[in-house]
Amino acid sequence: MSPTPRALEKLIQEFTKLPGIGPKTAERLVYYLLKQPKTELELLADILLQVKKDVTTCQNCFRFTDQNPCLLCADKKRDHHLLCVVAESQNIPIIEKTGAFAGLYHVLGGLISPLEGTTPDKLRINELMVKLKNNGFKEVILALNPDLDGETTSLYLSQLIKPLNVKLTRLARGLPMGANLEYADEVTLENAIIGRSEL
Amino acid sequence: MSPTPRALEKLIQEFTKLPGIGPKTAERLVYYLLKQPKTELELLADILLQVKKDVTTCQNCFRFTDQNPCLLCADKKRDHHLLCVVAESQNIPIIEKTGAFAGLYHVLGGLISPLEGTTPDKLRINELMVKLKNNGFKEVILALNPDLDGETTSLYLSQLIKPLNVKLTRLARGLPMGANLEYADEVTLENAIIGRSEL
Repeated sequence: MSPTPRALEKLIQEFTKLPGIGPKTAERLVYYLLKQPKTELELLADILLQVKKDVTTCQNCFRFTDQNPCLLCADKKRDHHLLCVVAESQNIPIIEKTGAFAGLYHVLGGLISPLEGTTPDKLRINELMVKLKNNGFKEVILALNPDLDGETTSLYLSQLIKPLNVKLTRLARGLPMGANLEYADEVTLENAIIGRSEL
Repeated sequence: MSPTPRALEKLIQEFTKLPGIGPKTAERLVYYLLKQPKTELELLADILLQVKKDVTTCQNCFRFTDQNPCLLCADKKRDHHLLCVVAESQNIPIIEKTGAFAGLYHVLGGLISPLEGTTPDKLRINELMVKLKNNGFKEVILALNPDLDGETTSLYLSQLIKPLNVKLTRLARGLPMGANLEYADEVTLENAIIGRSEL
């Protein structure tokens, strides 16, 4: 048998901790890195340390930012009566790219998932409720994934928010652009029929 | 628009350099890392620096090792007249696991690939030839991938090695275990027929 060098094993192990990276992929990445010049690894190590130093969470919306409050929360041209609730920080740039929303955001930090042990108290739901009670929002948009965890979270939040008499909406369900009716699943098609719009 | 923090962008960019990691995956990995405790990032940065310091290439077989010569080359119980030529260091543990080979290895450092600019002079072919001329090997096994680059390299090496009067072999071609004849591609099936063995 041929023992792989320990530092190499350890780096493979570290990479395997990352989401979606199995032992095979981790091995491929590590062998790639080994072939790179030393400066390249130093650069990567450096940025890894830098990123946690530079990046904090915004005190208002809780997204990752290097300014506090973040540029979005500080922007007075945005509609401060409109709140979009997202699961993760990385959902925000995607919504921003559409140009269809110009309100404020609230990052929950995940979705309710009993299977993964994510209970409501682990999310920023209290912070959301405090915000809704004090800041005079006119509409709250739940922009959560249309899957089991997203639906569970939407249901949970709607029961908390509805008594506050704030308009509560969620993203539309229907066929994605470029979809083919033949290959659409039943639930998507059902949603598309229920949510049909006039021409 | 919402500018993503610069350190974050830079880390995403670094991850995108890795093989098989696109911008989407890189983003997912980086946001995962951001949610980890600082110590975890420090550990990763640390091992990244350590790996290049600890791991060198073996002076004989050129595989990644932390001992020089590596444990395999130094092992006197192995057959020092048998040489297995592989493309990359990571191919060795896979072959070792089979337990079917107990000779020495030679790592080429890649395969001839005109498309990717890997010409023969970029591989450890000279080192291989010097080894074959001086070390009295009885057999050389080419354990290269059965694909375009692997075939090109095997052909190139066989033209160099044949004049040396050393027995030259390559890994068998045929059906993989668990394969289904119905789904086997033509070339695999052809190889399986040509290489059929008596029962």
